[in-house]
Amino acid sequence: MPNSLTKNNSRGCFITLEGMEGVGKSTHQAFIQRYLKQTGHAVVVTREPGGTPIAETIRQLLLKRQAEVIIPETELLLLFAGRAQHIKHVIRPALNAGKWVICDRFTDASYAYQGGGRGVSMQKIEALEKWVQADLRPDCILLLDTRVKLALKRIKRRGKLDRIETEEEEFFQRVRAAYLARAEKFPGRYEIIEASAALLKIQRRIKLILDKLINDRR
Amino acid sequence: MPNSLTKNNSRGCFITLEGMEGVGKSTHQAFIQRYLKQTGHAVVVTREPGGTPIAETIRQLLLKRQAEVIIPETELLLLFAGRAQHIKHVIRPALNAGKWVICDRFTDASYAYQGGGRGVSMQKIEALEKWVQADLRPDCILLLDTRVKLALKRIKRRGKLDRIETEEEEFFQRVRAAYLARAEKFPGRYEIIEASAALLKIQRRIKLILDKLINDRR
Repeated sequence: MPNSLTKNNSRGCFITLEGMEGVGKSTHQAFIQRYLKQTGHAVVVTREPGGTPIAETIRQLLLKRQAEVIIPETELLLLFAGRAQHIKHVIRPALNAGKWVICDRFTDASYAYQGGGRGVSMQKIEALEKWVQADLRPDCILLLDTRVKLALKRIKRRGKLDRIETEEEEFFQRVRAAYLARAEKFPGRYEIIEASAALLKIQRRIKLILDKLINDRR
Repeated sequence: MPNSLTKNNSRGCFITLEGMEGVGKSTHQAFIQRYLKQTGHAVVVTREPGGTPIAETIRQLLLKRQAEVIIPETELLLLFAGRAQHIKHVIRPALNAGKWVICDRFTDASYAYQGGGRGVSMQKIEALEKWVQADLRPDCILLLDTRVKLALKRIKRRGKLDRIETEEEEFFQRVRAAYLARAEKFPGRYEIIEASAALLKIQRRIKLILDKLINDRR
């Protein structure tokens, strides 16, 4: 028992933010960063796709609207290529150094967008996850969930849409359904947060979740 | 039987050129293209990594010498991401239209470079091959083989080296060994050509191979 406690203490905590565009992930990520710093934790804030120079180049390739149609297989392979770099050069070194890593989207987004949205087989995603991540899984997944129509309204207000944001409403319905199915499958890791609630209410909820994670590591 | 003959006649022929840098692949590709045109065949000349705008962007990412170390998993995933685009938008449409496709490197290079050179498990490569290519395999693989020292001398004469070309001699020894092992495993598809032979001798050999492929399709 003392051994596993020591292990928990020395390794950082890996938190991911999930959900569709327009649900306020960036705002909440900034809040989490502030709160963890205030409570004396070293924090690395990052995102997917992206997180390293090569992975950011891959992000550009994925999000740019272009003439050549990107097929679902390519999308998934590019995401895991960037993820492999991100894990190797950013996430694992930070966690091993005892830092907390707050990542805007991770593999659950591949299950939701490529699996749910595009219909790529979940087994393919699982095989890539096992290969590229080995035992690395988020300690806590904050799923910011709300009705698709509401999220789409917020996206459209922002102006210029990227390649993924131009998809049909049905696509995002499948994405949301896949996220909720993941949350049901992994209740211990997932925290579903109603993204349309008042900001202060969401922040109170996030604080409680963070306090619990901090306490678990003491 | 008449059915399978019809099928063979209508689908184009898929030829790949394999081997290390500096073995004369471009020269021989140009010769093959000329010879096939002279004999009345529609030809598409292409290459990997690359072959579509997105796959060419991936090629740049793979070959550029940069500060961030690209891990073997990323290399393999990027190659198959580009390959998926290349097959979907270039190779399959051309073959289905009855054209001959001559490709400078294809999946056998992944087995040789990422499998042999980098030590990625051959089972991982095989899994990606099955997923991304389904039943698509080259009809004929021309392996331009020669001693590693000789090929390296030719590469160095060219001047500026890309990321892969800067590898050690031992890396290329493993690449060569993996190519030769593939040739032994698939003798029906592989033709090993001694790359240091006289140009006219190599061209005579290639002509014989092409004549056989043409006759098989009659």
